[in-house]
Amino acid sequence: MLERDKTILIVGLGLLGGKYAQVLSGKGYTVWGIDSDAATVQWALDRAYISRGAAAPDRALVSRADRVIFGLYPTVLLDWVKQYGGWLKPGVLATDVSGVKRGVAAPVQQMLPDGVEFIASHPMAGRETSGITHSAEVDFAPANFIITPTEQNTPEAVAWCRNLAQTLGFARITTLSIAEHDRMIGYVSQLCHAIAVSLMCASDNSSLADYTGDSFRDLTRIARINEKLWAELFLWNRDNLIGEIDMFDAALQKLRGFLADGDRAGLEEMFRLSTVRRAAFDKKQNEPAGVPAARQPEH
Amino acid sequence: MLERDKTILIVGLGLLGGKYAQVLSGKGYTVWGIDSDAATVQWALDRAYISRGAAAPDRALVSRADRVIFGLYPTVLLDWVKQYGGWLKPGVLATDVSGVKRGVAAPVQQMLPDGVEFIASHPMAGRETSGITHSAEVDFAPANFIITPTEQNTPEAVAWCRNLAQTLGFARITTLSIAEHDRMIGYVSQLCHAIAVSLMCASDNSSLADYTGDSFRDLTRIARINEKLWAELFLWNRDNLIGEIDMFDAALQKLRGFLADGDRAGLEEMFRLSTVRRAAFDKKQNEPAGVPAARQPEH
Repeated sequence: MLERDKTILIVGLGLLGGKYAQVLSGKGYTVWGIDSDAATVQWALDRAYISRGAAAPDRALVSRADRVIFGLYPTVLLDWVKQYGGWLKPGVLATDVSGVKRGVAAPVQQMLPDGVEFIASHPMAGRETSGITHSAEVDFAPANFIITPTEQNTPEAVAWCRNLAQTLGFARITTLSIAEHDRMIGYVSQLCHAIAVSLMCASDNSSLADYTGDSFRDLTRIARINEKLWAELFLWNRDNLIGEIDMFDAALQKLRGFLADGDRAGLEEMFRLSTVRRAAFDKKQNEPAGVPAARQPEH
Repeated sequence: MLERDKTILIVGLGLLGGKYAQVLSGKGYTVWGIDSDAATVQWALDRAYISRGAAAPDRALVSRADRVIFGLYPTVLLDWVKQYGGWLKPGVLATDVSGVKRGVAAPVQQMLPDGVEFIASHPMAGRETSGITHSAEVDFAPANFIITPTEQNTPEAVAWCRNLAQTLGFARITTLSIAEHDRMIGYVSQLCHAIAVSLMCASDNSSLADYTGDSFRDLTRIARINEKLWAELFLWNRDNLIGEIDMFDAALQKLRGFLADGDRAGLEEMFRLSTVRRAAFDKKQNEPAGVPAARQPEH
């Protein structure tokens, strides 16, 4: 578990930053918060998610924090560290919640002063909603927490980040390289969102809502999306995501080819492969070590 | 409700035919059954889903039935009617459960003898599973039942089919033309299945199963598929489905183009559109007259 005597500063009290604040305060840690929106800070103070807060970068808070969690969009994070990172004192350990890691982790590490260590991590517990008022809906228990160390990181910082994830209640904590993380996220999350958005945008389907069942509902649930955040996440990872889209599209075009050719055997072969793979996936998911069957929203 | 004095013959005791038999027998109707698999017929007799059965086309049963329900694949249905349709007596009303209607309804109507009326219908209550042993899992209550009359049909036959659906417990019963039905099903069901299958076939993703969350699970659930049935359904509706795939692919390529160009505004615009449409869809689904929020598998 985390050390009790360290003050934790959360910069950015959104859906995830707010949830971190709620859980950590609830467990008795000293949590301070900064958010550019004054109403958000007041909301967090009113509910004792934080014991001190500021609606602007506040040198008194920043310079006295022992641990820092950045709950910011990637571009905002880079900007914040550039402007105010110098206020952090030596010995500080910091992490983030960003859904992409290339272009974020290394520059942040480079900009921070000597003695301040940034260890990147990704709590895969995002939702369609945003903002601190929805943070109570976030459930860390079934979600993945991924730590993405670079060569700059010490074992102590990785251990702290793992402690943080355990304290927050994540059941599955893993370590990936930054390249592995971004490739994985391009497939399991971003490609799925690209497909859902495209399906929803493909045609004005409102007249068909009466006839949709489970299939359409399941495929488009994640088409409700925070457009500013997801445009950032997509663009930070565009090479991986374009590669995944092309791989998916090749499979879809193969299926279309079988249709156009009236190739029943080709279609059946694809259906058999998808069935085998999906069955193996279900089996893996249902293993004791696997993710619980309960719904597990991701970022 | 259906007339009590009519004997109902179900030809094809699969997932849906078996469920029809279970519900109708449970409500006290006289239900007979024919299936090419002797074990299936015995299974249905043992559980009193049917009171008489045969494992081969049986002239005694066929010629004495008053109402007939075909629980067969489209090609098998056409073949059956061609071979044995002449055994049906005048006054018989018949329907089916097929997921596609063009190429099925008109030829069946043409092949049946004078005085026998076929009214096509589609219970959108299929599942990933198949066979009568799974039919107890089928839930008609939240599902759509679609009647697709042709110019050959009488109001009496349409009324009978509606009574049948009500007796079976369908909450939502609608009438569509055959062209409308097949266009609709190409979009809300077949395109979704084509996408799920392609996503699963795109790459060997087994090593990533540990990291998947809700998004990937939801998008690929329907990738477990009965390959023989779905190859038939896709091929019977290939022009519609190819059109839907091309419309979807155009949207996906538009998104890819925004990514390649680094066009943040373009991405945000698509995300806003998908969010608005999906929110409207949720709203419609949650209206009292809409489909309940409960899971509603479809064919």
